[in-house]
Amino acid sequence: MQFEISKDLILELQQHIVHKRDQDLERLLHDMHHADIAEILDELDFNEATYIFKVLDSDKTAEILLELEDDLRENILSRLSAKEIAEELDELDTNDAADIIAELSNNLKAEVISELDDLEHAKDIIDLLRYDEDTAGGLMGKELVKVNENWNVLTCVKEMRAQAENVSRVHSIYVVDDQNRLKGRLSLKDLLTTSTKTQIADIYIKKVTFVNVDAEDVEVARIMQKYDLEAIPVVDAMGRLVGRITIDDIIDVIREEADKDYQLAAGISQDVEADDSIIELSKARLPWLVLALLGGFITVRVLGLFEGAMVEHGNLFFFTPLIAAMAGNVGVQSSAIIVQGLANNTLSGSLFNRLIKEISLSLLNGAILSSILFLGSYFLLGEPAVLGVVICIALVAVIIIASLIGTFIPLLLHKVGVDPALATGPFITTSNDICGILIYFSIARMILGF
Amino acid sequence: MQFEISKDLILELQQHIVHKRDQDLERLLHDMHHADIAEILDELDFNEATYIFKVLDSDKTAEILLELEDDLRENILSRLSAKEIAEELDELDTNDAADIIAELSNNLKAEVISELDDLEHAKDIIDLLRYDEDTAGGLMGKELVKVNENWNVLTCVKEMRAQAENVSRVHSIYVVDDQNRLKGRLSLKDLLTTSTKTQIADIYIKKVTFVNVDAEDVEVARIMQKYDLEAIPVVDAMGRLVGRITIDDIIDVIREEADKDYQLAAGISQDVEADDSIIELSKARLPWLVLALLGGFITVRVLGLFEGAMVEHGNLFFFTPLIAAMAGNVGVQSSAIIVQGLANNTLSGSLFNRLIKEISLSLLNGAILSSILFLGSYFLLGEPAVLGVVICIALVAVIIIASLIGTFIPLLLHKVGVDPALATGPFITTSNDICGILIYFSIARMILGF
Repeated sequence: MQFEISKDLILELQQHIVHKRDQDLERLLHDMHHADIAEILDELDFNEATYIFKVLDSDKTAEILLELEDDLRENILSRLSAKEIAEELDELDTNDAADIIAELSNNLKAEVISELDDLEHAKDIIDLLRYDEDTAGGLMGKELVKVNENWNVLTCVKEMRAQAENVSRVHSIYVVDDQNRLKGRLSLKDLLTTSTKTQIADIYIKKVTFVNVDAEDVEVARIMQKYDLEAIPVVDAMGRLVGRITIDDIIDVIREEADKDYQLAAGISQDVEADDSIIELSKARLPWLVLALLGGFITVRVLGLFEGAMVEHGNLFFFTPLIAAMAGNVGVQSSAIIVQGLANNTLSGSLFNRLIKEISLSLLNGAILSSILFLGSYFLLGEPAVLGVVICIALVAVIIIASLIGTFIPLLLHKVGVDPALATGPFITTSNDICGILIYFSIARMILGF
Repeated sequence: MQFEISKDLILELQQHIVHKRDQDLERLLHDMHHADIAEILDELDFNEATYIFKVLDSDKTAEILLELEDDLRENILSRLSAKEIAEELDELDTNDAADIIAELSNNLKAEVISELDDLEHAKDIIDLLRYDEDTAGGLMGKELVKVNENWNVLTCVKEMRAQAENVSRVHSIYVVDDQNRLKGRLSLKDLLTTSTKTQIADIYIKKVTFVNVDAEDVEVARIMQKYDLEAIPVVDAMGRLVGRITIDDIIDVIREEADKDYQLAAGISQDVEADDSIIELSKARLPWLVLALLGGFITVRVLGLFEGAMVEHGNLFFFTPLIAAMAGNVGVQSSAIIVQGLANNTLSGSLFNRLIKEISLSLLNGAILSSILFLGSYFLLGEPAVLGVVICIALVAVIIIASLIGTFIPLLLHKVGVDPALATGPFITTSNDICGILIYFSIARMILGF
């Protein structure tokens, strides 16, 4: 099953908006999933989107708010009063509400919080605002079902029913002691299949994977993936249960992390999207281009060192882009494999073994590529055989050096605590351009003597 | 909480293996999570890993099997008899068991299936083997809890208890009619909070998001993410409930998809890891390097066209790697943003607007980079001002063309149904190298006249 926004639907909505036919709008959107409505609003202009937003009920709009693109959400929030925003937040889970409040200005924040209806909810939200967004505390929500180890199954089911009213999805049932310290978890299955008089202390599972409230988000993601968890309890420094993180929030972390590595490999240093403003896009792209430009200056200088070759061996200069391109590509390949290996925790073996492996691989690839290069330069481009030999030897050397740089720079960065993904993309291509050209002309000078 | 494999632990295990102290091994690993044990086995050699594997109980080893690296799993399976493999599979969920069977040779497959203990389980596994691994059918499992719309809450709870025995995690309770056609779902909350005499038909939720059994895995991932689902029911062409897909299997799809885009951007055409064999790594990397090499031949030819400039304007050749690098980097940036926009479904607006935007962005970046380039070439490199002007004009032109190529090639590929990620990395850098150098020298010739 598939939801597709049709042009007809958009047109119909726009007509209803123009003629202020609110009931028709409501009827049209009534059975739609909030994620679908958000997709529609993102297609409309800000005024149209806000009009529809105000027509719909707050139990629906609250969820829609979460799904909107950032700029539209910001725009809509700016047109709502503190009281209206508070009404939206009353409908949301604590972590989602806290995320939205965190986007507001400081003045508005306080005002919105004071307008929240449900005091318990407000207290939970304020508590969540304390944590960094990229920690377990920033990801967790307060909605959870917990039972006391001293209860029996009957009390437990009764208490759970009450708690479940406020929890949209029951992931796990956590067991705590009288001090709210996390003791373990209860399987729903055991609860369903045990007599009602059984003590919780007798049936709960004492092993439970948890994270500390200040654990990093990527660490939480790693643990939840490794142990296949759909929710994980969060404890404070005293071991007290303070919240839980669900897998849907972790999927966002996983995707953002993968997107970030990909963008860095492509030379984009901020999280930008195609639809961001030109200034934002420029800010994300310029730093890497400036780096490449500065590297380019060095290549100009390096080539200048070999100016003497121009008279007799001018053809050598025709091959510099080819050599630079091969060095760049090999370097990016090597670095990408290492960066992914580090990200997915699949690197093993010693540095020395890795060195031997990269050199063997480079010799294999270099031999094949050199053969093609020699044949191409001799038959296709009509270059003299001696030039072909020079270029082939240079190519093998360049491939070895480029793959070593591509392998060991990310490993080094990782070792000193810098994100190794920084070393894929422009950084590696630029340094390999420089090294590649230097090696190429040095070998040419040794063989041809100029 | 963190699990770290210590060298001491590995040494202790190895000592126990050498002296065949099976009980000590069991004691040491008894309380460990299967994912942790798998991590340990991956650190040992094949013989040691197999030894430990055979010491442990099959309820533990079955889960371990799933978590092992491919080559170790293959090795261990090759040392087990059909009966032993069947014992492992009896412990696993249907989809995991089917995944392992799918890796076996055809002969062994039949033998293992015939050795399965639980006939119902065997039937489910055989059913799952029919589906392509990258479809909903290939991802789904048979373990689910379903109730008939004609039951009441009491019958429902009773039946659920029985079904729950075979289901390790209850995600959703699906409601079917007498023909097993999916009608809706039941919220656990409603079930917990409704009187036992209520009819299911009166309380179940009629709206349920499902996928067809032959839906593509990435489509399933998109739907589950969009609607924040932790499990999704799978139906056949008749609308009958045939299985369910859980979010943990979808996380793998999301990660594989992100990894694949990343590898393509880096010029790696197969799913490889740093620890794969040299031959596999070479096979994944060579095609792109050959492509870059062939593109290199063209750049050699293009440069040859401008040989006449060498006598009077030899310095122009020093700047070719710089121009090529800028073209390549700009192209990769543009293509990466488009590829991610397509993958995350966040591209909107017309092609014409995108064209205007890319040109504006290029003019902005081009102006800034040209200023740096002019200053650098005049003061730093001591080139004549006229050469600086030539290079700056060329740079702006190259940036515009490169960003247009980077933007529209992925869009075009996507339009004709080819994976746009193919167009990031080497393909874009190579074509931009060629175009960039051609533009650069053409502009130089126009201004300098050679």
